[in-house]
Amino acid sequence: MDYQILETKERVQADNERAAAQTREKLKQSGALLVNLMGSPGAGKTTALLQLIERLKGEYRIGVMEADVDSDVDAKKIAETGTRVIQLHTAGLCHMDADMTKRGLDALQTDGLDLIFLENIGNLVCPAEFEVGADVRLMLLSAPEGDDKPLKYPLMFQISDICLLTKIDTAAVFDFDKAKATARARALNEKLTVIPVSAVTGEGFDAAAALLKEKLDERRKAQ
Amino acid sequence: MDYQILETKERVQADNERAAAQTREKLKQSGALLVNLMGSPGAGKTTALLQLIERLKGEYRIGVMEADVDSDVDAKKIAETGTRVIQLHTAGLCHMDADMTKRGLDALQTDGLDLIFLENIGNLVCPAEFEVGADVRLMLLSAPEGDDKPLKYPLMFQISDICLLTKIDTAAVFDFDKAKATARARALNEKLTVIPVSAVTGEGFDAAAALLKEKLDERRKAQ
Repeated sequence: MDYQILETKERVQADNERAAAQTREKLKQSGALLVNLMGSPGAGKTTALLQLIERLKGEYRIGVMEADVDSDVDAKKIAETGTRVIQLHTAGLCHMDADMTKRGLDALQTDGLDLIFLENIGNLVCPAEFEVGADVRLMLLSAPEGDDKPLKYPLMFQISDICLLTKIDTAAVFDFDKAKATARARALNEKLTVIPVSAVTGEGFDAAAALLKEKLDERRKAQ
Repeated sequence: MDYQILETKERVQADNERAAAQTREKLKQSGALLVNLMGSPGAGKTTALLQLIERLKGEYRIGVMEADVDSDVDAKKIAETGTRVIQLHTAGLCHMDADMTKRGLDALQTDGLDLIFLENIGNLVCPAEFEVGADVRLMLLSAPEGDDKPLKYPLMFQISDICLLTKIDTAAVFDFDKAKATARARALNEKLTVIPVSAVTGEGFDAAAALLKEKLDERRKAQ
């Protein structure tokens, strides 16, 4: 039985990599940048998204795919900003894979978009295992979760490009040591850019938006 | 491909159910009660466990299995209380299944134990799908995660017996409405016992410990 499960997983991963490559190629042609937004339930993904949209929507045309096991509370919040958005239901599945992402992009209609966010299922484990074809992997670790999380969930930190330390205004309440969290995350991935942010004070979101702007400009120049 | 995956999943679930049934039978014979402790990363599982151990260790012999993708920070904390504990590493897997739990129980050596806690991987999705043979499914939702989580992750609330609303002392900071969270959770599962708790103020943990005591006494009477 162990052997069979492994074989299936390898095949699933190979199929997934193929679909991710197709998405990467399609996005390169269309010029849109896809950001895979990941983190635990309640880490603040939708709130971070609203902060980034606010700072980027003047200059870029943005689309959002909201993935959830169920409900459409997040899509509603995004729609209120006037941003093009679709809700994806994974029907119990704990992550988005590349094929679901491809279908999502087709449904969203990416023509004319500069920047597309996929808000993945709230989960610090599984989404890290499945490439979706994104250009940027943006992960969140919230202060209430604790600064030991890089030790327990290393893969997410290893595969990400940017890590936002969210709800940083509550760090003192939860004994969250941002220097420790940053050092632990960067020990796993020295290329990881770590930015403490707070939607209450606004701290850090200008820097995070500037980083995405940089990547968007790089993409435009390459076209 | 879809069909193959489905078939594997069904087979995995059937194998899992068989192993869970064996564990249930074994525990019934030994008289120990197994509690499957689940929740998001940073929901406060280890802290809740320490609070419950403190209240129950005078009367009951307790064992703990700490499951993590990596690290042993939680097992260390439990060991400091003098409680019998083992650390299980799932090597990337996002949940504990019944077979891993069986192996864990063998390694822990359950003889003479009254109460065994399995602290599952921090994940609000996958552990809900895998029975481990537990007598009690105890889930945590922390105030910082938000009161909308029952809408987004319904299965965990559906399969649980007890839901602790943790870090409730920070509810005001995060606009966490405990009445809303409770109503949404109980709309999914009317038998769910919901208890707001705080490790800072101690609120709620006496009630939670009393509930486990009740279940332990029931089991002893049945023997």
